[in-house]
Amino acid sequence: MPRFFINTPPVDGMITIYGEDAMHIGRSLRARIGDEIVFCREGKDYLCKIEAFTKDSVSCRIYSEKPTLSEPSVKLTLYIALPKGDKAETVIQKCIELGAYKIVFFESERCVAKFGDAEKSTSKLTRLKKIALEAAKQSGRGLVPQVAFESTFEKAAERFCSSSLPLLCYENVGDDSHRLPELSEKIASAKDISVMTGSEGGFSMTEAETLTEKGAVKIWLGERILRCETAPIALTAIIMNITGNL
Amino acid sequence: MPRFFINTPPVDGMITIYGEDAMHIGRSLRARIGDEIVFCREGKDYLCKIEAFTKDSVSCRIYSEKPTLSEPSVKLTLYIALPKGDKAETVIQKCIELGAYKIVFFESERCVAKFGDAEKSTSKLTRLKKIALEAAKQSGRGLVPQVAFESTFEKAAERFCSSSLPLLCYENVGDDSHRLPELSEKIASAKDISVMTGSEGGFSMTEAETLTEKGAVKIWLGERILRCETAPIALTAIIMNITGNL
Repeated sequence: MPRFFINTPPVDGMITIYGEDAMHIGRSLRARIGDEIVFCREGKDYLCKIEAFTKDSVSCRIYSEKPTLSEPSVKLTLYIALPKGDKAETVIQKCIELGAYKIVFFESERCVAKFGDAEKSTSKLTRLKKIALEAAKQSGRGLVPQVAFESTFEKAAERFCSSSLPLLCYENVGDDSHRLPELSEKIASAKDISVMTGSEGGFSMTEAETLTEKGAVKIWLGERILRCETAPIALTAIIMNITGNL
Repeated sequence: MPRFFINTPPVDGMITIYGEDAMHIGRSLRARIGDEIVFCREGKDYLCKIEAFTKDSVSCRIYSEKPTLSEPSVKLTLYIALPKGDKAETVIQKCIELGAYKIVFFESERCVAKFGDAEKSTSKLTRLKKIALEAAKQSGRGLVPQVAFESTFEKAAERFCSSSLPLLCYENVGDDSHRLPELSEKIASAKDISVMTGSEGGFSMTEAETLTEKGAVKIWLGERILRCETAPIALTAIIMNITGNL
């Protein structure tokens, strides 16, 4: 059954769609009155039947609602130091398929990529949000994971450390007590996990210290050097597996 | 210390390098006699000192050798139905960083991408091997994982099923007994695992039946639909974590 995301809650058991999605339902899908369609919002599926078309809208009546089966039980937020090129897009696409709840980019000391001025930053964020929407649609998510830019490292650090399990991916640990398997039980029982990964140059020692002082748990992914876009993808897969969500 | 891969074993405690790598050592790195350098082959590190330069070669004496720390204890071979576009490159790059031992591509019933004629196929394979070499260098592997094309589905199926734990990624299972966490113990104790993932269209029922008859263990990655290139990356990360190699 075709699935679409809605931004606002249903009103009186009805969902009315405008714009691109309405065009898509009417023209590309050639849907008719009585056809079934699913709308998703915040992890909930609304099963509907089309009741009416206008020139630019589609009205649907909800006949059933239920939590989206595909939504993970754990809320995983990724804090990612802005990478170069199109790596942010790769991370968003793969991590949303794998179940990430929210993806926040920030600039760290060693970031080569920058948000740029207000205009550039807004257009970059708009593009990334579009990729998030596409990935959420394609993978059958029950919500569109938020993508956000955090203006400073300090703010990102603050929010990251406020989760119940903030995992900081830091390569200069070199100590087996920081390996992921040691943290399996904590991960399995957490409802709210955040992961922070560095840019191409990793984190500075000062940044790592600031974060651990605020409560971040350092993790070390072993001897192989992972690219900055591979680490969050691998961690999302592993966390979803440990929490029974893959 | 700079690291290079060698194809042939050392002779009488010496390693002599020709071609591109020799040029790189002499010119780009501006190495001198007495400088230290590491050569890797089949999971072993050879720690050497440069003894002599000629116009097109560098001779090095081994002063110590040891297993490469970064090599996983488990041998994971990925059998991947040829994907479209540059997805094969993404899979190779990420899975080698994460620790895959070998990556085999094959054509399945629903593959849109094809190896093409002998000439096309050879040039494609050459390009993919180059990406494997780069990924192995960048991530500090102790060997260059092989990349191969298997000419038929039957041959790929035969080899895939000959491993001690052949895991077939199949989306039409829909039964929790096939979820990965159920297989954690088997994965943790296996020394030799193979994973098979489908192309954009997945596997046909006939293919899945053929494989399970030969002993493949079906796995189901849950309700979210993963892109064909995301599944092998996620599985490599998860298997490396379960086996203590991440």
